[in-house]
Amino acid sequence: MKLWRVVGFDDSFKDNVAYLVGCITCKDYVEGFLIDRINVDGRDVSEKIVKLVSKSRFKEQIKCILLSGLTFAGFNIADVDYIYNKLQIPIVVVLERYPNMKKIERALKNFDDFEDRINLIRKAGDVRNVNGVYVQIKGCDEDFVLKILDLTIRKGKTPEPLRIAHLVASALIYKESKRR
Amino acid sequence: MKLWRVVGFDDSFKDNVAYLVGCITCKDYVEGFLIDRINVDGRDVSEKIVKLVSKSRFKEQIKCILLSGLTFAGFNIADVDYIYNKLQIPIVVVLERYPNMKKIERALKNFDDFEDRINLIRKAGDVRNVNGVYVQIKGCDEDFVLKILDLTIRKGKTPEPLRIAHLVASALIYKESKRR
Repeated sequence: MKLWRVVGFDDSFKDNVAYLVGCITCKDYVEGFLIDRINVDGRDVSEKIVKLVSKSRFKEQIKCILLSGLTFAGFNIADVDYIYNKLQIPIVVVLERYPNMKKIERALKNFDDFEDRINLIRKAGDVRNVNGVYVQIKGCDEDFVLKILDLTIRKGKTPEPLRIAHLVASALIYKESKRR
Repeated sequence: MKLWRVVGFDDSFKDNVAYLVGCITCKDYVEGFLIDRINVDGRDVSEKIVKLVSKSRFKEQIKCILLSGLTFAGFNIADVDYIYNKLQIPIVVVLERYPNMKKIERALKNFDDFEDRINLIRKAGDVRNVNGVYVQIKGCDEDFVLKILDLTIRKGKTPEPLRIAHLVASALIYKESKRR
Protein backbone atom coordinates (compact mmCIF):
# COMPACT_ATOMS: atom_id res chain seq x y z
CA MET A 1 0.00 0.00 0.00
CA LYS A 2 3.01 2.24 0.45
CA LEU A 3 3.14 3.25 -3.21
CA TRP A 4 -0.58 3.23 -3.88
CA ARG A 5 -1.73 6.25 -5.82
CA VAL A 6 -5.25 7.59 -5.55
CA VAL A 7 -6.81 10.06 -7.96
CA GLY A 8 -9.68 12.33 -6.92
CA PHE A 9 -11.81 14.18 -9.46
CA ASP A 10 -13.77 17.35 -8.89
CA ASP A 11 -15.11 20.07 -11.17
CA SER A 12 -15.98 23.72 -11.28
CA PHE A 13 -18.06 25.64 -13.78
CA LYS A 14 -19.54 29.01 -14.60
CA ASP A 15 -21.70 29.87 -17.59
CA ASN A 16 -20.51 27.55 -20.37
CA VAL A 17 -17.02 26.84 -19.06
CA ALA A 18 -16.32 23.78 -16.93
CA TYR A 19 -13.10 22.18 -15.75
CA LEU A 20 -12.56 18.59 -14.67
CA VAL A 21 -9.58 18.33 -12.31
CA GLY A 22 -8.00 15.11 -11.07
CA CYS A 23 -5.43 15.26 -8.29
CA ILE A 24 -3.15 12.24 -7.87
CA THR A 25 -1.62 11.65 -4.46
CA CYS A 26 0.48 9.02 -2.76
CA LYS A 27 -0.95 9.11 0.76
CA ASP A 28 -1.09 12.90 1.23
CA TYR A 29 1.82 13.72 -1.11
CA VAL A 30 0.71 15.45 -4.32
CA GLU A 31 2.11 13.60 -7.34
CA GLY A 32 0.36 15.36 -10.20
CA PHE A 33 -2.80 16.62 -11.82
CA LEU A 34 -5.03 15.60 -14.71
CA ILE A 35 -7.03 18.48 -16.19
CA ASP A 36 -9.50 18.78 -19.05
CA ARG A 37 -12.57 20.74 -20.03
CA ILE A 38 -16.01 19.13 -19.92
CA ASN A 39 -19.39 20.29 -21.17
CA VAL A 40 -21.80 21.99 -18.79
CA ASP A 41 -24.86 19.72 -18.52
CA GLY A 42 -23.16 17.47 -21.09
CA ARG A 43 -22.54 13.74 -21.02
CA ASP A 44 -18.79 13.56 -21.55
CA VAL A 45 -17.43 13.39 -17.99
CA SER A 46 -17.06 9.58 -17.84
CA GLU A 47 -15.22 9.41 -21.16
CA LYS A 48 -12.93 12.26 -20.10
CA ILE A 49 -12.10 10.56 -16.80
CA VAL A 50 -11.30 7.31 -18.61
CA LYS A 51 -9.08 9.10 -21.13
CA LEU A 52 -7.17 11.10 -18.54
CA VAL A 53 -6.49 8.09 -16.33
CA SER A 54 -5.65 5.78 -19.26
CA LYS A 55 -3.04 8.17 -20.58
CA SER A 56 -1.55 9.00 -17.18
CA ARG A 57 1.98 7.90 -16.39
CA PHE A 58 0.56 6.81 -13.01
CA LYS A 59 -2.09 4.53 -14.53
CA GLU A 60 -0.57 1.30 -13.21
CA GLN A 61 -0.15 2.70 -9.70
CA ILE A 62 -3.62 4.22 -9.35
CA LYS A 63 -5.48 1.87 -7.02
CA CYS A 64 -8.62 3.93 -6.49
CA ILE A 65 -10.64 6.63 -8.25
CA LEU A 66 -12.46 9.05 -5.97
CA LEU A 67 -15.28 11.11 -7.42
CA SER A 68 -16.66 14.21 -5.73
CA GLY A 69 -20.27 13.18 -6.14
CA LEU A 70 -21.81 11.77 -9.30
CA THR A 71 -22.74 15.05 -10.93
CA PHE A 72 -20.12 17.23 -12.59
CA ALA A 73 -20.53 20.60 -14.32
CA GLY A 74 -24.25 20.89 -13.69
CA PHE A 75 -25.79 17.55 -14.61
CA ASN A 76 -22.94 15.88 -16.46
CA ILE A 77 -23.40 12.62 -14.57
CA ALA A 78 -20.63 10.06 -14.13
CA ASP A 79 -21.34 6.54 -15.38
CA VAL A 80 -19.62 4.48 -12.71
CA ASP A 81 -20.13 1.18 -14.57
CA TYR A 82 -18.58 2.54 -17.75
CA ILE A 83 -15.56 3.96 -15.93
CA TYR A 84 -15.03 0.75 -13.99
CA ASN A 85 -15.41 -1.48 -17.04
CA LYS A 86 -12.88 0.55 -19.00
CA LEU A 87 -10.28 1.00 -16.25
CA GLN A 88 -10.83 -1.88 -13.81
CA ILE A 89 -9.95 0.41 -10.91
CA PRO A 90 -12.18 0.57 -7.80
CA ILE A 91 -14.34 3.70 -7.64
CA VAL A 92 -15.48 5.51 -4.51
CA VAL A 93 -18.02 8.30 -4.96
CA VAL A 94 -17.76 10.63 -1.97
CA LEU A 95 -20.93 12.59 -1.22
CA GLU A 96 -21.06 15.75 0.85
CA ARG A 97 -24.43 14.75 2.23
CA TYR A 98 -27.07 12.09 1.81
CA PRO A 99 -28.51 12.75 -1.66
CA ASN A 100 -32.05 14.08 -1.98
CA MET A 101 -33.33 11.95 -4.86
CA LYS A 102 -36.59 13.87 -5.17
CA LYS A 103 -34.71 17.14 -5.65
CA ILE A 104 -32.36 15.55 -8.17
CA GLU A 105 -35.24 14.02 -10.14
CA ARG A 106 -37.04 17.36 -10.22
CA ALA A 107 -33.94 19.08 -11.64
CA LEU A 108 -33.37 16.35 -14.21
CA LYS A 109 -36.96 16.50 -15.50
CA ASN A 110 -35.91 19.36 -17.78
CA PHE A 111 -33.60 17.12 -19.80
CA ASP A 112 -34.85 15.28 -22.90
CA ASP A 113 -32.75 12.30 -21.85
CA PHE A 114 -34.15 12.38 -18.30
CA GLU A 115 -34.40 8.57 -18.09
CA ASP A 116 -30.77 7.99 -19.12
CA ARG A 117 -29.47 10.47 -16.59
CA ILE A 118 -31.56 9.28 -13.68
CA ASN A 119 -30.49 5.73 -14.47
CA LEU A 120 -26.84 6.70 -14.11
CA ILE A 121 -27.61 7.86 -10.58
CA ARG A 122 -29.75 4.84 -9.71
CA LYS A 123 -27.26 2.26 -10.93
CA ALA A 124 -24.43 3.86 -8.93
CA GLY A 125 -25.79 1.86 -6.01
CA ASP A 126 -26.68 2.34 -2.38
CA VAL A 127 -25.33 5.21 -0.36
CA ARG A 128 -23.34 3.88 2.58
CA ASN A 129 -22.02 5.63 5.62
CA VAL A 130 -18.40 4.57 6.09
CA ASN A 131 -16.88 6.13 9.18
CA GLY A 132 -19.06 9.20 8.83
CA VAL A 133 -18.41 9.60 5.11
CA TYR A 134 -21.25 9.00 2.63
CA VAL A 135 -20.06 6.92 -0.29
CA GLN A 136 -21.21 4.87 -3.26
CA ILE A 137 -18.76 2.17 -4.29
CA LYS A 138 -17.90 0.07 -7.32
CA GLY A 139 -15.35 -2.74 -7.52
CA CYS A 140 -14.46 -2.66 -3.83
CA ASP A 141 -15.89 -3.21 -0.37
CA GLU A 142 -16.26 -1.08 2.76
CA ASP A 143 -12.94 -2.32 4.19
CA PHE A 144 -11.21 -1.02 1.10
CA VAL A 145 -12.95 2.36 1.50
CA LEU A 146 -11.78 2.53 5.13
CA LYS A 147 -8.20 1.91 4.00
CA ILE A 148 -8.40 4.60 1.32
CA LEU A 149 -9.91 7.13 3.73
CA ASP A 150 -7.22 6.34 6.28
CA LEU A 151 -4.51 6.68 3.64
CA THR A 152 -5.66 9.98 2.14
CA ILE A 153 -7.42 12.07 4.81
CA ARG A 154 -5.22 14.61 6.55
CA LYS A 155 -7.76 16.90 8.22
CA GLY A 156 -11.54 16.60 8.49
CA LYS A 157 -13.45 14.16 6.30
CA THR A 158 -12.24 14.92 2.78
CA PRO A 159 -9.50 12.82 1.16
CA GLU A 160 -6.60 15.02 0.04
CA PRO A 161 -6.99 14.26 -3.70
CA LEU A 162 -10.61 15.48 -3.63
CA ARG A 163 -9.86 18.44 -1.38
CA ILE A 164 -7.01 19.66 -3.57
CA ALA A 165 -8.83 18.93 -6.87
CA HIS A 166 -11.63 21.15 -5.58
CA LEU A 167 -9.20 23.95 -4.70
CA VAL A 168 -7.68 23.88 -8.20
CA ALA A 169 -10.99 23.60 -10.04
CA SER A 170 -12.57 26.50 -8.20
CA ALA A 171 -9.49 28.71 -8.66
CA LEU A 172 -9.66 28.05 -12.41
CA ILE A 173 -13.11 29.60 -12.48
CA TYR A 174 -12.86 32.25 -9.75
CA LYS A 175 -9.08 33.04 -9.76
CA GLU A 176 -8.93 32.03 -6.08
CA SER A 177 -9.96 28.71 -4.55
CA LYS A 178 -13.38 28.60 -2.94
CA ARG A 179 -14.10 26.80 0.26
CA ARG A 180 -16.82 24.20 0.01
CA MET B 1 5.66 30.83 12.25
CA LYS B 2 3.08 28.13 12.81
CA LEU B 3 0.42 29.86 10.77
CA TRP B 4 2.70 31.42 8.18
CA ARG B 5 1.42 31.00 4.67
CA VAL B 6 3.73 30.97 1.69
CA VAL B 7 2.62 31.39 -1.92
CA GLY B 8 4.67 30.01 -4.80
CA PHE B 9 4.10 31.11 -8.40
CA ASP B 10 4.94 29.15 -11.53
CA ASP B 11 3.66 29.25 -15.10
CA SER B 12 3.14 27.10 -18.14
CA PHE B 13 2.50 28.10 -21.73
CA LYS B 14 2.07 26.80 -25.24
CA ASP B 15 1.53 28.89 -28.37
CA ASN B 16 -0.36 31.96 -27.17
CA VAL B 17 -1.87 30.52 -24.01
CA ALA B 18 -0.14 30.96 -20.65
CA TYR B 19 -1.27 30.30 -17.11
CA LEU B 20 0.08 31.83 -13.92
CA VAL B 21 -0.54 29.55 -10.94
CA GLY B 22 0.05 30.41 -7.30
CA CYS B 23 -0.13 27.68 -4.69
CA ILE B 24 -0.63 28.76 -1.07
CA THR B 25 0.58 26.41 1.64
CA CYS B 26 0.91 26.42 5.40
CA LYS B 27 4.12 24.41 5.83
CA ASP B 28 3.36 21.57 3.39
CA TYR B 29 -0.44 21.72 3.72
CA VAL B 30 -2.16 23.03 0.59
CA GLU B 31 -4.50 25.91 1.50
CA GLY B 32 -5.53 27.16 -1.91
CA PHE B 33 -4.64 28.35 -5.39
CA LEU B 34 -4.51 31.65 -7.25
CA ILE B 35 -4.84 31.29 -11.02
CA ASP B 36 -4.92 33.73 -13.91
CA ARG B 37 -3.89 33.99 -17.54
CA ILE B 38 -0.85 36.03 -18.55
CA ASN B 39 0.49 37.09 -21.93
CA VAL B 40 3.21 35.05 -23.60
CA ASP B 41 6.27 37.33 -23.87
CA GLY B 42 4.11 40.07 -22.35
CA ARG B 43 4.80 42.37 -19.41
CA ASP B 44 1.82 41.71 -17.17
CA VAL B 45 3.11 39.05 -14.79
CA SER B 46 4.05 41.42 -11.93
CA GLU B 47 0.71 43.21 -12.01
CA LYS B 48 -1.16 39.88 -12.09
CA ILE B 49 0.82 38.57 -9.09
CA VAL B 50 0.08 41.75 -7.13
CA LYS B 51 -3.63 41.57 -7.97
CA LEU B 52 -4.01 37.90 -7.10
CA VAL B 53 -2.22 38.25 -3.76
CA SER B 54 -3.96 41.54 -2.85
CA LYS B 55 -7.39 40.02 -3.37
CA SER B 56 -6.60 36.74 -1.63
CA ARG B 57 -8.32 35.89 1.62
CA PHE B 58 -4.89 34.78 2.84
CA LYS B 59 -3.23 38.14 2.11
CA GLU B 60 -2.55 38.98 5.76
CA GLN B 61 -1.08 35.55 6.47
CA ILE B 62 1.20 35.32 3.45
CA LYS B 63 4.70 35.92 4.79
CA CYS B 64 6.69 35.09 1.67
CA ILE B 65 6.24 35.05 -2.10
CA LEU B 66 8.26 32.41 -3.94
CA LEU B 67 8.79 32.84 -7.67
CA SER B 68 9.92 30.03 -9.93
CA GLY B 69 12.59 32.07 -11.64
CA LEU B 70 12.15 35.61 -12.92
CA THR B 71 10.84 34.77 -16.38
CA PHE B 72 7.28 33.61 -16.88
CA ALA B 73 5.49 32.63 -20.09
CA GLY B 74 8.50 33.12 -22.34
CA PHE B 75 10.04 36.46 -21.41
CA ASN B 76 7.30 37.97 -19.27
CA ILE B 77 9.78 39.05 -16.61
CA ALA B 78 8.80 39.66 -12.99
CA ASP B 79 9.58 43.10 -11.56
CA VAL B 80 10.62 42.17 -8.04
CA ASP B 81 10.82 45.81 -6.87
CA TYR B 82 7.31 46.58 -8.11
CA ILE B 83 5.83 43.49 -6.46
CA TYR B 84 7.61 44.19 -3.18
CA ASN B 85 6.65 47.87 -3.15
CA LYS B 86 2.99 47.05 -3.72
CA LEU B 87 2.69 44.12 -1.31
CA GLN B 88 5.47 44.60 1.27
CA ILE B 89 5.94 40.83 1.44
CA PRO B 90 9.44 39.31 1.19
CA ILE B 91 10.17 37.72 -2.19
CA VAL B 92 12.42 34.74 -2.85
CA VAL B 93 13.15 33.91 -6.49
CA VAL B 94 14.13 30.25 -6.70
CA LEU B 95 16.30 29.36 -9.69
CA GLU B 96 16.76 25.88 -11.08
CA ARG B 97 20.37 26.61 -11.95
CA TYR B 98 22.79 29.51 -11.95
CA PRO B 99 21.50 31.84 -14.68
CA ASN B 100 23.47 32.18 -17.90
CA MET B 101 23.22 35.94 -18.44
CA LYS B 102 24.84 35.83 -21.88
CA LYS B 103 22.21 33.39 -23.10
CA ILE B 104 19.41 35.46 -21.58
CA GLU B 105 20.72 38.66 -23.15
CA ARG B 106 20.97 36.98 -26.53
CA ALA B 107 17.34 35.85 -26.33
CA LEU B 108 16.14 39.25 -25.16
CA LYS B 109 17.87 41.11 -28.03
CA ASN B 110 14.86 40.37 -30.22
CA PHE B 111 12.59 42.55 -28.09
CA ASP B 112 12.11 46.24 -28.87
CA ASP B 113 12.13 46.94 -25.14
CA PHE B 114 15.33 44.94 -24.63
CA GLU B 115 16.76 47.45 -22.13
CA ASP B 116 13.70 47.44 -19.90
CA ARG B 117 13.58 43.67 -19.76
CA ILE B 118 17.26 43.16 -19.09
CA ASN B 119 17.05 45.77 -16.33
CA LEU B 120 14.34 43.78 -14.58
CA ILE B 121 16.74 40.86 -14.43
CA ARG B 122 19.74 42.96 -13.36
CA LYS B 123 17.95 44.78 -10.57
CA ALA B 124 16.66 41.52 -9.09
CA GLY B 125 20.02 41.29 -7.39
CA ASP B 126 22.80 38.80 -6.84
CA VAL B 127 22.21 35.10 -7.12
CA ARG B 128 23.01 33.43 -3.81
CA ASN B 129 23.41 29.79 -2.94
CA VAL B 130 21.40 29.11 0.22
CA ASN B 131 21.77 25.52 1.34
CA GLY B 132 22.23 24.34 -2.22
CA VAL B 133 19.31 26.37 -3.57
CA TYR B 134 20.01 29.31 -5.93
CA VAL B 135 17.93 32.32 -4.96
CA GLN B 136 17.53 36.05 -5.49
CA ILE B 137 15.92 37.82 -2.56
CA LYS B 138 14.03 41.03 -1.84
CA GLY B 139 12.91 42.31 1.57
CA CYS B 140 14.54 39.52 3.56
CA ASP B 141 17.92 37.98 4.42
CA GLU B 142 19.44 34.54 4.00
CA ASP B 143 18.33 33.42 7.47
CA PHE B 144 14.75 34.11 6.43
CA VAL B 145 15.27 32.07 3.26
CA LEU B 146 16.62 29.16 5.31
CA LYS B 147 13.52 29.27 7.51
CA ILE B 148 11.20 29.32 4.49
CA LEU B 149 13.03 26.43 2.81
CA ASP B 150 12.91 24.44 6.05
CA LEU B 151 9.20 25.19 6.43
CA THR B 152 8.12 24.29 2.90
CA ILE B 153 10.42 21.61 1.47
CA ARG B 154 9.18 18.07 1.84
CA LYS B 155 11.36 16.16 -0.63
CA GLY B 156 14.35 17.31 -2.69
CA LYS B 157 15.10 21.01 -3.08
CA THR B 158 11.81 22.49 -4.27
CA PRO B 159 9.44 24.18 -1.80
CA GLU B 160 5.98 22.58 -1.91
CA PRO B 161 4.16 25.72 -3.15
CA LEU B 162 6.46 25.94 -6.19
CA ARG B 163 6.43 22.21 -6.82
CA ILE B 164 2.64 21.99 -6.73
CA ALA B 165 2.13 25.25 -8.69
CA HIS B 166 4.29 23.72 -11.42
CA LEU B 167 2.25 20.50 -11.43
CA VAL B 168 -1.01 22.44 -11.85
CA ALA B 169 0.33 24.88 -14.46
CA SER B 170 1.75 22.13 -16.65
CA ALA B 171 -1.43 20.03 -16.41
CA LEU B 172 -3.43 23.05 -17.57
CA ILE B 173 -1.43 23.07 -20.79
CA TYR B 174 -0.71 19.37 -21.31
CA LYS B 175 -3.70 17.72 -19.50
CA GLU B 176 -1.22 15.87 -17.25
CA SER B 177 1.47 17.40 -15.03
CA LYS B 178 4.97 17.41 -16.47
CA ARG B 179 8.02 16.65 -14.42
CA ARG B 180 10.62 19.41 -14.48
